[in-house]
Amino acid sequence: MKFGVDYYPEHISRSYWEWDAEKMQEAGIEVVRMAEFAWAKMEPAEGQYDFGWLDEAIVILGRRGIKTVLGTPTATPPVWIIERNPEILPVNLQGQRLGFGGRHHNCQSNETYRDHIRRFVREMAKHYNNNPHVIGWQTDNEFGNSHLQLCACDSCRSRFHQWLERKYGTIDALNDAWGTVFWSQTYSRFEQIPAPLPTPNSHNPSLLLDWRRFCSDLIVDFQKVQIDILRQECPNQFITHNFMGFFDKTDYFDLAKDLDFVSHDQYPMHFRDMRIPMTTPSHLSMALDLMRGTKQQSFWIMEQLAGPTGWELISSTPRPGQIRMWTYHSIAHGADTIVYFRWDTCLAGTEQYWHGILPHSRIPGRRFAEVKQTIQELSPYMEYFRGGSPKAEAGILFSYDQEWALQIQPHHPGLNYIELLRSYYKGFYDANVPVDIVSDKEDYSRYKVLVAPLLFLTHPDTCQKLYEYVSAGGHLVLSMRTGVKDWNNAVVPKMLPGEFSDLLGIAIEDYDCLRQFGQGLKWTKGAANIEEDVKLWSDIITLKGAESLAEYNRDFYANTPGITRNVYNKGRAYYVGSDLGPEMMARFIGEVSTASGVKGLMESPENVEVTRRCGHDGDYMFVINHNSEDASVKLQEAWEVLVGKEFVHGSVLTLAPYGVALIRRAYESEWKTEG
Amino acid sequence: MKFGVDYYPEHISRSYWEWDAEKMQEAGIEVVRMAEFAWAKMEPAEGQYDFGWLDEAIVILGRRGIKTVLGTPTATPPVWIIERNPEILPVNLQGQRLGFGGRHHNCQSNETYRDHIRRFVREMAKHYNNNPHVIGWQTDNEFGNSHLQLCACDSCRSRFHQWLERKYGTIDALNDAWGTVFWSQTYSRFEQIPAPLPTPNSHNPSLLLDWRRFCSDLIVDFQKVQIDILRQECPNQFITHNFMGFFDKTDYFDLAKDLDFVSHDQYPMHFRDMRIPMTTPSHLSMALDLMRGTKQQSFWIMEQLAGPTGWELISSTPRPGQIRMWTYHSIAHGADTIVYFRWDTCLAGTEQYWHGILPHSRIPGRRFAEVKQTIQELSPYMEYFRGGSPKAEAGILFSYDQEWALQIQPHHPGLNYIELLRSYYKGFYDANVPVDIVSDKEDYSRYKVLVAPLLFLTHPDTCQKLYEYVSAGGHLVLSMRTGVKDWNNAVVPKMLPGEFSDLLGIAIEDYDCLRQFGQGLKWTKGAANIEEDVKLWSDIITLKGAESLAEYNRDFYANTPGITRNVYNKGRAYYVGSDLGPEMMARFIGEVSTASGVKGLMESPENVEVTRRCGHDGDYMFVINHNSEDASVKLQEAWEVLVGKEFVHGSVLTLAPYGVALIRRAYESEWKTEG
Amino acid sequence: MKFGVDYYPEHISRSYWEWDAEKMQEAGIEVVRMAEFAWAKMEPAEGQYDFGWLDEAIVILGRRGIKTVLGTPTATPPVWIIERNPEILPVNLQGQRLGFGGRHHNCQSNETYRDHIRRFVREMAKHYNNNPHVIGWQTDNEFGNSHLQLCACDSCRSRFHQWLERKYGTIDALNDAWGTVFWSQTYSRFEQIPAPLPTPNSHNPSLLLDWRRFCSDLIVDFQKVQIDILRQECPNQFITHNFMGFFDKTDYFDLAKDLDFVSHDQYPMHFRDMRIPMTTPSHLSMALDLMRGTKQQSFWIMEQLAGPTGWELISSTPRPGQIRMWTYHSIAHGADTIVYFRWDTCLAGTEQYWHGILPHSRIPGRRFAEVKQTIQELSPYMEYFRGGSPKAEAGILFSYDQEWALQIQPHHPGLNYIELLRSYYKGFYDANVPVDIVSDKEDYSRYKVLVAPLLFLTHPDTCQKLYEYVSAGGHLVLSMRTGVKDWNNAVVPKMLPGEFSDLLGIAIEDYDCLRQFGQGLKWTKGAANIEEDVKLWSDIITLKGAESLAEYNRDFYANTPGITRNVYNKGRAYYVGSDLGPEMMARFIGEVSTASGVKGLMESPENVEVTRRCGHDGDYMFVINHNSEDASVKLQEAWEVLVGKEFVHGSVLTLAPYGVALIRRAYESEWKTEG
Repeated sequence: MKFGVDYYPEHISRSYWEWDAEKMQEAGIEVVRMAEFAWAKMEPAEGQYDFGWLDEAIVILGRRGIKTVLGTPTATPPVWIIERNPEILPVNLQGQRLGFGGRHHNCQSNETYRDHIRRFVREMAKHYNNNPHVIGWQTDNEFGNSHLQLCACDSCRSRFHQWLERKYGTIDALNDAWGTVFWSQTYSRFEQIPAPLPTPNSHNPSLLLDWRRFCSDLIVDFQKVQIDILRQECPNQFITHNFMGFFDKTDYFDLAKDLDFVSHDQYPMHFRDMRIPMTTPSHLSMALDLMRGTKQQSFWIMEQLAGPTGWELISSTPRPGQIRMWTYHSIAHGADTIVYFRWDTCLAGTEQYWHGILPHSRIPGRRFAEVKQTIQELSPYMEYFRGGSPKAEAGILFSYDQEWALQIQPHHPGLNYIELLRSYYKGFYDANVPVDIVSDKEDYSRYKVLVAPLLFLTHPDTCQKLYEYVSAGGHLVLSMRTGVKDWNNAVVPKMLPGEFSDLLGIAIEDYDCLRQFGQGLKWTKGAANIEEDVKLWSDIITLKGAESLAEYNRDFYANTPGITRNVYNKGRAYYVGSDLGPEMMARFIGEVSTASGVKGLMESPENVEVTRRCGHDGDYMFVINHNSEDASVKLQEAWEVLVGKEFVHGSVLTLAPYGVALIRRAYESEWKTEG
Repeated sequence: MKFGVDYYPEHISRSYWEWDAEKMQEAGIEVVRMAEFAWAKMEPAEGQYDFGWLDEAIVILGRRGIKTVLGTPTATPPVWIIERNPEILPVNLQGQRLGFGGRHHNCQSNETYRDHIRRFVREMAKHYNNNPHVIGWQTDNEFGNSHLQLCACDSCRSRFHQWLERKYGTIDALNDAWGTVFWSQTYSRFEQIPAPLPTPNSHNPSLLLDWRRFCSDLIVDFQKVQIDILRQECPNQFITHNFMGFFDKTDYFDLAKDLDFVSHDQYPMHFRDMRIPMTTPSHLSMALDLMRGTKQQSFWIMEQLAGPTGWELISSTPRPGQIRMWTYHSIAHGADTIVYFRWDTCLAGTEQYWHGILPHSRIPGRRFAEVKQTIQELSPYMEYFRGGSPKAEAGILFSYDQEWALQIQPHHPGLNYIELLRSYYKGFYDANVPVDIVSDKEDYSRYKVLVAPLLFLTHPDTCQKLYEYVSAGGHLVLSMRTGVKDWNNAVVPKMLPGEFSDLLGIAIEDYDCLRQFGQGLKWTKGAANIEEDVKLWSDIITLKGAESLAEYNRDFYANTPGITRNVYNKGRAYYVGSDLGPEMMARFIGEVSTASGVKGLMESPENVEVTRRCGHDGDYMFVINHNSEDASVKLQEAWEVLVGKEFVHGSVLTLAPYGVALIRRAYESEWKTEG
Repeated sequence: MKFGVDYYPEHISRSYWEWDAEKMQEAGIEVVRMAEFAWAKMEPAEGQYDFGWLDEAIVILGRRGIKTVLGTPTATPPVWIIERNPEILPVNLQGQRLGFGGRHHNCQSNETYRDHIRRFVREMAKHYNNNPHVIGWQTDNEFGNSHLQLCACDSCRSRFHQWLERKYGTIDALNDAWGTVFWSQTYSRFEQIPAPLPTPNSHNPSLLLDWRRFCSDLIVDFQKVQIDILRQECPNQFITHNFMGFFDKTDYFDLAKDLDFVSHDQYPMHFRDMRIPMTTPSHLSMALDLMRGTKQQSFWIMEQLAGPTGWELISSTPRPGQIRMWTYHSIAHGADTIVYFRWDTCLAGTEQYWHGILPHSRIPGRRFAEVKQTIQELSPYMEYFRGGSPKAEAGILFSYDQEWALQIQPHHPGLNYIELLRSYYKGFYDANVPVDIVSDKEDYSRYKVLVAPLLFLTHPDTCQKLYEYVSAGGHLVLSMRTGVKDWNNAVVPKMLPGEFSDLLGIAIEDYDCLRQFGQGLKWTKGAANIEEDVKLWSDIITLKGAESLAEYNRDFYANTPGITRNVYNKGRAYYVGSDLGPEMMARFIGEVSTASGVKGLMESPENVEVTRRCGHDGDYMFVINHNSEDASVKLQEAWEVLVGKEFVHGSVLTLAPYGVALIRRAYESEWKTEG
């Protein structure tokens, strides 16, 4: 399975199905995802199952060699369920019960709803477990999406109590951990603990963090209900779920555990302005690297953008070449299969402007042609690097616990954990250094450099691992707001950086949230001196063995260290006391890379990325021009240009706007990658 | 009846009434509107009627020759009704039931409330049907105002179900029309359909559009309850209602049907910032043209601004001359009677800063003097053009269905149907071409040019009429997003512009919502080349018989057509694939006007408008200087200046800031208007 | 008692208490406030009291000579109260009942909650009334804070009815006063009157004002419940409450009446952006002057900033010297005792980033050192001016009724009563003229100048007092929107400035809220002509005996008076018809000061303030440099520099950034203050 489409035969007349299958085959489509919103069509009334239409669609596609992945339609409980069990309707954090009319109008802890799911999913699983065209399952759809702040109903609150009791054992332990003595919030029974519904002032931050963890675990548990059934009934079919990059409602490391592989929905263009930062090349790349990181393996794109997106608003139309470019981009970062969303464009409902490959008219146009071309040129090579990784020597630690804690208390209105992570990521990205996004449970020994920004909450295991990592020769980068809290979101009663003080060789006696006053950093170590403003935060640092690489340039702590380096046994521990602008970050990452021996794959202009997948016979390098203008890179001799040959002149490869090239570096060459 | 005031004797001591009547008479007032908020005063407890105070006020005014229009006070149910029947209180779209304390705190579908209305209106009607001073009725007050997003209570939902059943007949027909198969929203009974209360994600756009139509019909139906009684009890008195220009809650074409004539509340200055675009001269003119268009006849102004407006905030004070100017302005566009809001200024309550002619002190000041002067100078001429129209040769199609559909899905955050309409209107307005605003039910054959922007929903009857209109020689202008949807807000499965493809001779294979990337147009047809940016949307057009008048100037569709013209039988069909800036619009409207033979009344500087009413003995032209500086126009010989003579020097008429002139062009002149 | 800290022994292990007491003693701390949020710790279950831990803490501190002020913990009802009596939970103005989880999750009218308070406070009072270390009580905490828009529950509504009945006697009197005839809102019984919960449109402004007054009175009444008990049980201990400057929920003049003295929480740096205007030096000074004004006596600071503040966001860190500077600043304006918030920094809960003197690590750092130094250098002098006032010759009238009325109807979106007051205050402040902030109940005869801006509501007593004040020779400044309303928020049916017309010798026939059109003023009286824009409002004034000092400079009322002065018997009554920019204000205040004989204490650069407290042996002047740069002032010979001597060179005192000086002017000198 290399390329597919999301397909909704139920949205159109039966008369189109044969033609659709034929055109899919023409385009090179080998797999479809179907049925993930079709509960009402498969069970129009309780216990009345109708899979006939779907059987038929599967067979029509199957005859053309197109396999099927089935979605469990649990994101869209039909109206007859809601009518009968309105208590299933979810309650948002304003205490407002939401109604039928969109999707995900359900509470995920509600046992009645789970019973409906058990009944239906078993029936569906039994029906399809032996269907030769059905190869796997997708659970539900984009867990957390639409749900957003849901649900805080009595059922969820009660399950929260059980979750807390399992975690803390006794109410006294919880009171201690949360510091409920503050503002007389001491509880005598778990049942007294509120869901974080509106209260005068704010809730206890420890409660808020545990609520986020509980909500994440609830989703994992909710998925488990149907996974258990599918595993039992369909042992020969895979199970996946479509993730959403840096979406923040679920710990994807946890959610991935029960899946055979993860899938991802990649929308580099979006109709909502607020998501514009999520459409920059480095963010998109980092999201794909997270997807690969959730299981440290390659993945599917279950929804790859195939046209303008839209609900009430509509995005720009993808420029000619962009659909192709983003396909290469997803593959470059570890996707083995690309499923385009969607085959056609729905004529009705909320997503009637979420454009698929075919427009509303179903007349194949430039998007169809571009997808077809993309498949034709990429297909021959994909088996060579299937399952291949970039063999990154740099890792960035990403943790949902840190993100949630920093959402609860962002300190500065402009502080965003993901964006701060991205500023480090971009330091590597601009130098074409492959990066893995890793969890705090990961083994870091494979990395020459590990960057772990905003390690706000301290977990003793992670802490110990990091000491060991540096001791053994690793280069570790930590940042401002590290070691502030314990794992329960209470403050560690130590001089900062708390448990990391020895490792870093510094003490932080004061800090300055950059609300009223500005600040900047000047790099003073080595040749190229740089001076650049910072925006969010400055730690005021005293050296306790470390040396200073950069100093602040104004106010009462001018000329005190802002970036430090400490030798710790065989390794180096860097501390960045502030946020860094792009120039300073490039300088800093350059320093760390040189010191640790990490090298970029190639030099390239801004927003021309070079990404590697290590294949069976060589390294495959993807050169991707995210710019709307031409851009050139210089090639080395041993490189074989597989796609884009016609754009090579001498040793210069000149990519068109949104142009791409695929290059093989065979393993016999001097460049052979270790490991 | 030429001039009147809104009068609230109940707000003041009885001792002022005689003096008020005397001063009104002095100012030239001939009619008052009274009682539209006085239910509690007329029925202080259920079944205890007290009309004595009103009888007395009517007589005092009547003795001075001042007639009375009575408002039914159904916008303000007294507290004793709410106390007894709290279920009458309305529920907003957040599901929140609103309480007593303002006005319009009532659901319009509630039968208990309708019973209260039936009882009270009949009593009031019987009491006044033979009063010689009472000439007519106003129903309620500004339907939709204050109500805004109301009401979504169970009664309304249930009436919505009935409305849907009448429209669709069967639930299957509704499921098909709405495409409820999307997201498993299929219904088996009408009773399952939700009101559009909060749901995760968005509601089905077809549901949302039908809800808006239902809400509009409900208001028409709600008005009908009292109209039926009034028609029966008061056969010799007229019935009207005060509209609010482009207010969007009710289809005014429908609401107007049951009325003898419509009235309008015109507030060219407003205390709310958000309504500032509604106070530009072209918007104000277009609103008046819509009012005339609702019944294609002249109308009343029931509330004409007479001072600063205000609730918690206060508007600027009208500049000296503006009250006079806006009076001329309303009359110029078709008002036969001007009723000023209000006689005095209330000392208490929410509208204590909504200033009337008299200030809080009741000491007549400059506003009184200006109103008095205005009445004196205008009165002698008003009978000559009473009922007269502008005899417009250009029409602009306005449709509430289109507006609602585009509010539900505006595509681009900056897209506003009324504002886009206004950009076309302004093209004519700046050239002093009279324009009618017409519904999609109208006969267009009288117009040389018809502009129908954003014909987003396709109605087969309108479609056919437009083909016929062009066939017969008409010049039709259509725009971007035409023919996209069917009448149920589902997408038409055709290449755009859908049903209008043949008429326009183009195909639209792609389009670009201008979210991330900019775009511009250059006019290339004929002499004056213009280049100007566009902001919202670009259709990417292939000519299929049409010719291009202007092309895009950048990005991958640079040099492709943006404005086209197609010869279709005897007529011309223009297509504008984008929004136009003011220069481009002027050029385009100039082109269309020349081609179709439409001419402006006069040349004038920016914001000096010239409007025509065709009278019994000649054309009456109103020259109105909306600017805060002097402005001049050039007069022709045959023109008789009735008001403003002192500002003519040679053939030049120089108007003061906010100055006006009234000019007669007798029918014996060469300029005589046909028809 | 000169210096103290807020201390929370319950937040930390018992093992720290001795050390804490020792370090406090070292720093010069003499008093702590404790227990104001510790209800759950003192009564873990209903009727089970545990004061042992607190007794112990009090003794440990007492042994070091540190006295205790106890807070009644009624801001934090424990969860067991809420669990048993959920009807205590408050309802906000959206009709939403808020839950447990923050603080102040209680309705203040609820009798069940009051019973809980009566039981607990009596128990606590009896326990501590004879404790030799306990010197006084603080009621609750920051009344109104957290409560914000609370509570509008049925209990509150019912109490509102009783309040209205007490005020108006009969429902007819209320109907008349409120003008409920408007929009048929006439009531027949008090029980029908709504709380101002959401309604279509706005509520009656008279209802809204009375609601604000009722809410304020309710807080006073709520406090009275515990004060009555404390007075009875603890006759030898004082009672205070911690106010919050210009916080708007309670009339602090009323709330102060039942207290021995008031306390204030002063946070010159805040983590919420919206409060930034509240952190300018003149605002901070004015807030302290209001605190002194509430009882016209000196006061305590119960919470003086001692570190960065923060909840979910964090403020900048106080610059070195700022904690010291703000300590001097509070004392300069009348504080006799400074209690720093807080001793240490809490490790858990909502306020874990509200930094105290000690950081989370408890390792004393620069803040500890700065506080210690401040206490050491200030302590020797504080007894000399304890109880001393600035002997101001200028007063500014501040009224909660005016503020509430102008919040309900701000006229212009930018109009803010406090900010307009501050523009006058700053006129004096920049000239180092001491100012009292006084209520409308005050005796004004002691002031040479009285400024009473925005006297929007007219109270007959105040009106009469102001006539008498001017008659007797006072200089009175009134402004735009004076005399508009009666005390019930209905408009006075007179030509403006209403009851003040004779006093001011002007008539205002029109006014212009500056929404669409700009305006400016030019000063024409005397030498230095100034021209400056105004922003909010312009009264259009006719002189009726007054003379003009400044005129408008544009539009139709150009060259008409904008600032006037009227001779009225022995005094002068000034009228400012607009808001003034800083230059015009300086000119105007200069004019008024010269005319009335008011002089500044010293000349100083911008934001270097000089404030006086008259002591037993001389005037004490505080010179405070709020700037982040050096600043110099010139000293006179007779002045003895007590603190800051080392910065005097010749007669020039040069203060460091945030530097301060304390100067004595002994009474034998020529400068001796009268009175």
